[in-house]
Amino acid sequence: MTAPIYERVALIGLGLIASSMGHAMKKWGLATTVTGHAKTELTRTSALELGFCDEVFASAAEAVRDADLVVLAVPVGAMEGVATEIGPHLKPGATVTDVGSVKQAVIEAVAPNIPEGVHFIPGHPLAGTEHSGPRSGFATLFRNRFCLLIPNGAAPEAIARLRDYWEGMGANVEEMDAAHHDIVLAVTSHTPHLIAYTMVGVADHLRRVTESEIIKYSAAGFRDFTRIAASDPTMWRDVFLTNKEATLDILGRFTEELFALQRAIRMGDGDELFDYFTRTRAIRRSIIEAGQDTAAPDFGRAKVDGA
Amino acid sequence: MTAPIYERVALIGLGLIASSMGHAMKKWGLATTVTGHAKTELTRTSALELGFCDEVFASAAEAVRDADLVVLAVPVGAMEGVATEIGPHLKPGATVTDVGSVKQAVIEAVAPNIPEGVHFIPGHPLAGTEHSGPRSGFATLFRNRFCLLIPNGAAPEAIARLRDYWEGMGANVEEMDAAHHDIVLAVTSHTPHLIAYTMVGVADHLRRVTESEIIKYSAAGFRDFTRIAASDPTMWRDVFLTNKEATLDILGRFTEELFALQRAIRMGDGDELFDYFTRTRAIRRSIIEAGQDTAAPDFGRAKVDGA
Repeated sequence: MTAPIYERVALIGLGLIASSMGHAMKKWGLATTVTGHAKTELTRTSALELGFCDEVFASAAEAVRDADLVVLAVPVGAMEGVATEIGPHLKPGATVTDVGSVKQAVIEAVAPNIPEGVHFIPGHPLAGTEHSGPRSGFATLFRNRFCLLIPNGAAPEAIARLRDYWEGMGANVEEMDAAHHDIVLAVTSHTPHLIAYTMVGVADHLRRVTESEIIKYSAAGFRDFTRIAASDPTMWRDVFLTNKEATLDILGRFTEELFALQRAIRMGDGDELFDYFTRTRAIRRSIIEAGQDTAAPDFGRAKVDGA
Repeated sequence: MTAPIYERVALIGLGLIASSMGHAMKKWGLATTVTGHAKTELTRTSALELGFCDEVFASAAEAVRDADLVVLAVPVGAMEGVATEIGPHLKPGATVTDVGSVKQAVIEAVAPNIPEGVHFIPGHPLAGTEHSGPRSGFATLFRNRFCLLIPNGAAPEAIARLRDYWEGMGANVEEMDAAHHDIVLAVTSHTPHLIAYTMVGVADHLRRVTESEIIKYSAAGFRDFTRIAASDPTMWRDVFLTNKEATLDILGRFTEELFALQRAIRMGDGDELFDYFTRTRAIRRSIIEAGQDTAAPDFGRAKVDGA
């Protein structure tokens, strides 16, 4: 246990990310009091039962009262409504941050509602699972994951404090500007998710033809796509609607590359395919070297020679 | 240890699949003698050192002499050359099978070279990792994986024996006709792999712009693609060249779906996106219910609340 970094932290939205933050704050003593707000009573009750909130409130305005840190953990499309509601109730000197997957749109939605004297520092922890809701959170979700903070002109001491807070939950904190964040995430996260959703959708249509075979033989590669295509639909709808430009840009590049490979298949150009597949293999190696994955063979099974 | 199912088994090609079969035969006593052939001496020496072959030969023709079962475990594009070479040396009454990811093309390449009195039963174990070579194999690779056999008009007792052999390695054996196999695999494996390769290729081009950021922030979804895009380039080149029609068919459907989603993003049609993402989530549930994956949250980390 370290000294609390914030006295009172308000979690607005109590899903996977907020509940994990709550558990992490409790585990490592990062806050004295954790308050929470969620729209449904069932979620609020769960938060108290699970113990990651000390107090819950039916309105966001009540939840943020006297908070030193306010964390907006709602889908990106709901940020503006929440910001409008809490703006007049924020304590002078408090910090407001968020955990949205898109940053330019969040700044446009939230910044105009933050009063003078309150620090607004957008953030994005690159962590998650395909599960959602208050029961899916766990304290170690952020450990060794990156958390990107957008300085956005905030006071350096407020940024340093928020950095300490995330580091207290085990995250590696980096600063980045909002536009750059949105294009980096379009490549590393948003477009891959859209593609996974699409591939699973294709199989869904065919499934009616080949019955349960798609499901049965999914381990041959398809299964890896279904995992990311099982993520929260509301969250992802909002990501694509609010990071439209960057996602469409990367999708355009993806389509070009796909057509080139499709042409190589149609023309029987084995050399082009071989060269392409060799280059992509090198990227995998770089990711392993960077410590962002292990070289352990997976494909759904560990390399264990058990009985 | 059970009684050996075949006296003498010849592995032609000594990569991930063959080396795993060799280890499995040794572990469960499925063959009295395992012979092997690979083009390079280094691979042959490794097979002896690792102990999954009893004898190795510089030519495939020597390796298959007196074999009761011959397993063709070379890339699909190399099947015809191998079949031509071994045809005259096969023992009457022997069974020839293969482990290629495409079945119609393998039958066209191999069947004409199999003499009267030898059983040819094409096969495809749906198992693998992103690693390749003789050192990547392990005995339990096939456990609880499906192995598809193509009866192809072979004698029922020969099929039953090959089925026992695969079941001895822990696989669930199913029979399927070749054309149907190729379309099922185009959906569950071949197209997902091509798409993963493409997404990683897109990032490769951008990487030069954003330096190592793609690598660094890959855990947000992209990483799952790089794993399957790290598979053996030769094997995958041959898959796409030989399962051209089915792959292009599924790719066409994929592109249609992708364009529909891209349009929904551009038009800001949140309802369409939400409905699509909700449907794909249901498929994920079916896969978990079918026992082909677990519901444990992954995204590169287990749900363990360790210290």
